[in-house]
Amino acid sequence: MRKRATVRQLAAETGLSVTTVSRALNGQDNVAPRTRELVLQAVGRLGHQAPRRRTDRDAIYVRCPHLLSDYFGVIVSAIAEAADLHGIEVTLNAGEAAQRSDALSRLAGRAGVGGAILILPPEPGEDLVRLRDQGVPFVVVDPRTAPPRDIMAVSAAHFSGARSLMAHLVGLGHRRVGIIGGPREWLVTDARTAGYLAALADVGVLPSPDLMRFATEPATEHGYRAARALLDRPDRPTALVGFNDKMAVGALRAAAERGLRVPADLSIAGFDDIDVSRATQPMLTTIRQPLAELGRMAVTLLMRQLDRHEHDALHVELATELVVRGSTGPVPEGPGAP
Amino acid sequence: MRKRATVRQLAAETGLSVTTVSRALNGQDNVAPRTRELVLQAVGRLGHQAPRRRTDRDAIYVRCPHLLSDYFGVIVSAIAEAADLHGIEVTLNAGEAAQRSDALSRLAGRAGVGGAILILPPEPGEDLVRLRDQGVPFVVVDPRTAPPRDIMAVSAAHFSGARSLMAHLVGLGHRRVGIIGGPREWLVTDARTAGYLAALADVGVLPSPDLMRFATEPATEHGYRAARALLDRPDRPTALVGFNDKMAVGALRAAAERGLRVPADLSIAGFDDIDVSRATQPMLTTIRQPLAELGRMAVTLLMRQLDRHEHDALHVELATELVVRGSTGPVPEGPGAP
Repeated sequence: MRKRATVRQLAAETGLSVTTVSRALNGQDNVAPRTRELVLQAVGRLGHQAPRRRTDRDAIYVRCPHLLSDYFGVIVSAIAEAADLHGIEVTLNAGEAAQRSDALSRLAGRAGVGGAILILPPEPGEDLVRLRDQGVPFVVVDPRTAPPRDIMAVSAAHFSGARSLMAHLVGLGHRRVGIIGGPREWLVTDARTAGYLAALADVGVLPSPDLMRFATEPATEHGYRAARALLDRPDRPTALVGFNDKMAVGALRAAAERGLRVPADLSIAGFDDIDVSRATQPMLTTIRQPLAELGRMAVTLLMRQLDRHEHDALHVELATELVVRGSTGPVPEGPGAP
Repeated sequence: MRKRATVRQLAAETGLSVTTVSRALNGQDNVAPRTRELVLQAVGRLGHQAPRRRTDRDAIYVRCPHLLSDYFGVIVSAIAEAADLHGIEVTLNAGEAAQRSDALSRLAGRAGVGGAILILPPEPGEDLVRLRDQGVPFVVVDPRTAPPRDIMAVSAAHFSGARSLMAHLVGLGHRRVGIIGGPREWLVTDARTAGYLAALADVGVLPSPDLMRFATEPATEHGYRAARALLDRPDRPTALVGFNDKMAVGALRAAAERGLRVPADLSIAGFDDIDVSRATQPMLTTIRQPLAELGRMAVTLLMRQLDRHEHDALHVELATELVVRGSTGPVPEGPGAP
């Protein structure tokens, strides 16, 4: 449980009067900036039952610095629908505008915003801590970097998803499996790589680091290039896993260029289950992300904050689902096999 | 130019006092419903310079009853970015909530909404006329059915897009071309079918109605089924055009099942240039829709209304672009040709 300080405790901590602390917390003008800073620092140390009151007019501020396409768009659609069920509007901050580093700092003290749901670029956890200290209720969706412990966040169960996909491949006899991940520093890349290693360790395999590639951007072209490098190795992998469907599509293209039949010569799998995974021939085996549920759960968690229900600082992970399609098959055997 | 009535003219038209007309237009409570109705009817006949004033706090209300995926999501992303450049926020009404038939009627008289950008399901033009009469500035994006003449709308140039795609196929020698359209009553279906007919007429061909199929939903599965029917005809078409990329993906699947090589035995093309068009092998020849520009132009047109610039009631069409990829080629010749 996160500790909650009263105005009285904050006054004792700062040596300021209760009135001044209260003014500072309510964002009133007649408080010196330095004084406000002192109070906010104390809030950061002690926690605070923020004095915000939820009104019917308050909207949920949704920030999404990524294109609302078939991944993030599905999340934002679900947020909008769930918010509507609560009779709450959504103020959308999307695209380039949402990438500006001051987007979070401009959020505190805004009229008409009851809380926020944040889909983030990789950015410093300190910004989130500051926002919390300013008393803005918020939930982070699908964080790219590990959020501070006491920040509410909801994401897919990346480790177990990767482990179940790898268990599927291991069950088909694959031992030399190449992975094409996104940026190394992303939480999702780290968790899925761990799932990959865990599933192979279960059958006593420690894969060569050469079989793990990490792209600077999780895009088709990057998946294609990484797959080319992996397929041109003398000890060619028998299966490739792209850490999203787009990179797996790039891998399919690299396989086709080399005359490799999928899945007879090479198995390929992805993550996400977005439209492209069903546009390919064969269609991609993939891990379906609970995209709509990520959005709905974010709204539920935010409502709990707004309604002042007691809560632990939650990091919620939602289960994923293995979807087996035509792109994965038994490991190749015989003289042609690598 | 749309005629604009003054409060004085509306008073003369209705026989009511200027004060009463003014009260009715400003949505004040002390006006009988019947009286307000009289005034709104007069506004409908005469037009009216609405008394709304734009304030800094006013948001743009964006309605999108479709999933924010790689078609509508791109439009809404661009709206959000363009609005941000004007320092204006976006209130998003998306998904199921935006499909409710009362969504438009609840819009009039709302506090904090300066104007609206509407992406619509097929729905009666009368609702739009009523919204205009209530003095709400708005722009319709990519209308499914023909909007009333004096409603501002922005869409892609569907006729010329289809004509240029067909000209490409005709130039490759194709004369027996099958089309897979969306619902027959949609504006886009009608315009693209006209473009198809025009391009064939240019070379003296009047296609059989049997070569034109219209799906109840523009989805992959529906494209697949329509393509099966077209490919199983004795006079099999040498090219298929899906009216979106998803239906073209369905056509690729139907072709693969029949052992038809694309494009050697059969050319296939789509519309939109969304991600799936680049996930297939071969990649799809398609017509790129100006999705982001649709969103930006909608904001520009709305700003002109909000700033009270004079304007004709505009229907803006934005040019599309033919993107030639591997799925289209010369018409097959020789004994194997149909």
